[in-house]
Amino acid sequence: MTHRIIIKNGMFADLSPTAKQSSFHGFMVVENDRIVHIGSELPEQYAAADAEIIDGKGLFFIPGLVNTHGHAAMSLLRGYGDDLALQTWLQEKMWPMEGKFTANDVYWGTALSVIEMLKGGTTTFVDMYDYMDEVAKVCEQSGIRASLMRGAIGLCPEDVQREKLNEAIQFAKDWNGKADGRIRTIMAPHAPYTCPPAFIESFVQAAHDLDLPLHTHMSETKAEVEQNVKDYGMRPVAHLEKLGFFSRPSFVAHAVHLTDEEIETLAKYQVAVSHNPGSNLKLASGVARVPEMLRAGVVVSLGTDGAASNNNLDMFEEIRLTALIHKGVSGDPTAVPAAEALRMGTIYGAQTIRLDDIGALEVGMKADFVAVDIDQPHFLPHTDLVSHMVYSASAKDVKHVWVDGKQVVKNGECLTMDEERILREAQQCFDGLLAR
Amino acid sequence: MTHRIIIKNGMFADLSPTAKQSSFHGFMVVENDRIVHIGSELPEQYAAADAEIIDGKGLFFIPGLVNTHGHAAMSLLRGYGDDLALQTWLQEKMWPMEGKFTANDVYWGTALSVIEMLKGGTTTFVDMYDYMDEVAKVCEQSGIRASLMRGAIGLCPEDVQREKLNEAIQFAKDWNGKADGRIRTIMAPHAPYTCPPAFIESFVQAAHDLDLPLHTHMSETKAEVEQNVKDYGMRPVAHLEKLGFFSRPSFVAHAVHLTDEEIETLAKYQVAVSHNPGSNLKLASGVARVPEMLRAGVVVSLGTDGAASNNNLDMFEEIRLTALIHKGVSGDPTAVPAAEALRMGTIYGAQTIRLDDIGALEVGMKADFVAVDIDQPHFLPHTDLVSHMVYSASAKDVKHVWVDGKQVVKNGECLTMDEERILREAQQCFDGLLAR
Repeated sequence: MTHRIIIKNGMFADLSPTAKQSSFHGFMVVENDRIVHIGSELPEQYAAADAEIIDGKGLFFIPGLVNTHGHAAMSLLRGYGDDLALQTWLQEKMWPMEGKFTANDVYWGTALSVIEMLKGGTTTFVDMYDYMDEVAKVCEQSGIRASLMRGAIGLCPEDVQREKLNEAIQFAKDWNGKADGRIRTIMAPHAPYTCPPAFIESFVQAAHDLDLPLHTHMSETKAEVEQNVKDYGMRPVAHLEKLGFFSRPSFVAHAVHLTDEEIETLAKYQVAVSHNPGSNLKLASGVARVPEMLRAGVVVSLGTDGAASNNNLDMFEEIRLTALIHKGVSGDPTAVPAAEALRMGTIYGAQTIRLDDIGALEVGMKADFVAVDIDQPHFLPHTDLVSHMVYSASAKDVKHVWVDGKQVVKNGECLTMDEERILREAQQCFDGLLAR
Repeated sequence: MTHRIIIKNGMFADLSPTAKQSSFHGFMVVENDRIVHIGSELPEQYAAADAEIIDGKGLFFIPGLVNTHGHAAMSLLRGYGDDLALQTWLQEKMWPMEGKFTANDVYWGTALSVIEMLKGGTTTFVDMYDYMDEVAKVCEQSGIRASLMRGAIGLCPEDVQREKLNEAIQFAKDWNGKADGRIRTIMAPHAPYTCPPAFIESFVQAAHDLDLPLHTHMSETKAEVEQNVKDYGMRPVAHLEKLGFFSRPSFVAHAVHLTDEEIETLAKYQVAVSHNPGSNLKLASGVARVPEMLRAGVVVSLGTDGAASNNNLDMFEEIRLTALIHKGVSGDPTAVPAAEALRMGTIYGAQTIRLDDIGALEVGMKADFVAVDIDQPHFLPHTDLVSHMVYSASAKDVKHVWVDGKQVVKNGECLTMDEERILREAQQCFDGLLAR
């Protein structure tokens, strides 16, 4: 039986670059998991149709936000070690604690992140971590959409490397297409500076064998780029190109330190970039050359990175940071306009992870969408709603969220997860990590 | 009769630089407008005292936020013209609309801003605009604390200049100390590039006569600094020094483009700076040298600027931006640590506007404070609550707000203003401005 939702009298975002107006008043119809109508009128056929009716008054509907880089379970370490130099932070704070993570920690840390993301309008996220079966379980249960991968660090003996690769392959096989198709899998060597070339090549081979995309961290810090030149005689982009990484649909996280030539190479191979402005600023990694990448035709989307280096998973904040910092740093107030920043958080995110049916409110698209409460002081007057989403909104302004046609957040409450229990278990996990 | 409030079992911020821990579990007692006790125990004398009891469980109490630069009525132009070059934005968008503002527009625009600020935990704000009697009325009615000034642009005939000066003086006299002392007044020539030297000197003289502080815009853009050198043979700091501006307690907004020598001069005269990171980024003015100013001993506080160039009045966002951008731009992850950023939004704000009894939760201070709901996913685990306020909180996390010992926001609702009416009137004012 068809489950039909009809949204009446809402305001809807139109983010297509050719749109005359970025928002319009109208109607949207969803049947099961797909958008079947959107426009300023409601076609007659739906007038008397059996449907769940949503009153759209005071709501602005935008595509679900797509978070293209993160480590969900790291929310357990939120606020545990801030304002430290990167190596101190990693070596004295993150790694010792992460070394103690169990499957249980990953489950509850991921649940904590997923409920934060869903309530904040993120309907799809990318996750690279360990104990990925736990992450996949949380996705299955919560109703969120996700592209998941076992991220593998190769600074270990060959037999351990092999074990990690097999684990990554097994996870990718087990979960691709699961949870009604909401889960997709990806192959991911952690980074050029943490993976020997042969280890990266084995992931590229596996991605070919399984017909999956590739993801990795790249050029996050200046030091890591310099190390790459020292170790391999070339910068990370040339290095990954040489290892065949870009022969697959692929995307890289961070890409803060790039030359003009490297930007051209990324454009040539259609390598997408997950820009993580909050994390890059907090860890003092620098400011990525986003306007230059966009001009060169690189698909640039947005990621929060883990909550330990952000420290939240509010995609509205990443969207706003992107619209703000590139203006301030470049001196050009027209850099990354509002609609472009919102596209980076939605449709460009979908393109980054190679999903062609999410990221926009259009007929035929998956029904992943968000209703923002715009009858609030910080959204008045109703001049330009897209501008308001970018420059004035936060996760807490989200009222309702649907993923795959199913409502997962209603009046700010998550319908699919037990928030009270998650908060309690997350605190217990952290206390346990401290005590062990 | 004494109105007493006792907060039990809350978590409280201790932002003093010598504090061993930035937060503690405890009790706070307010009598009328002052904090009379704060600590980990409740003294026996209050055990059976007549009082309004507040259950502090799940709440983090911080000092009320102090917004040290803005133009509240400009919220009527929120989202009206974004992503434009500064001169286009001013000449084609802002000035034509502002030229049409009436007292009624200023009243409702200010009301819109004040309700947004109060709900977001801002208990004190600085406002520089026209029709200031309207702004003062809103402050009187809403219960917010404010330092107000008629900002005067001197690019006009001498008789008009004189009229503006007299208006500024009259306003300062009429309202200083009003609204139970919550309103203070300040003298404010708009900026060195919009005011001839003699006009600035007349404001300095008036500030001496009335024993009031001075405020102005300074060195917001590179172009304006260059113009100053061209017109007067010196940069703005030397120019204002020469005009006697710093002979009064004074503070300047923006101060983006400063030399080392200028920073030293500001420190020498104890000139405070209102740093406006959101506005400076959005208008592509640049990134102020905040770490250098703080190191030199300059008091640096935070301002939102008007909502037309921000585009919200969320002080948590300014606090976070400050903690993030100076790390990212300087390459130093220890720049502007979390507690320092929160001090910039509270106690340094109080110091900036020369109020010595707000900005901290201490005995003898005015009872201006905010309760943040910390039982939410983005604040878990409860590792470092000050870090969470800086890196993870937004205006919408504020649950209760008190100013001068009176509760003005309860469970996210403003008790002193009619939100529904303000939203309606603000929209009507904007529509009217468009139509005129």
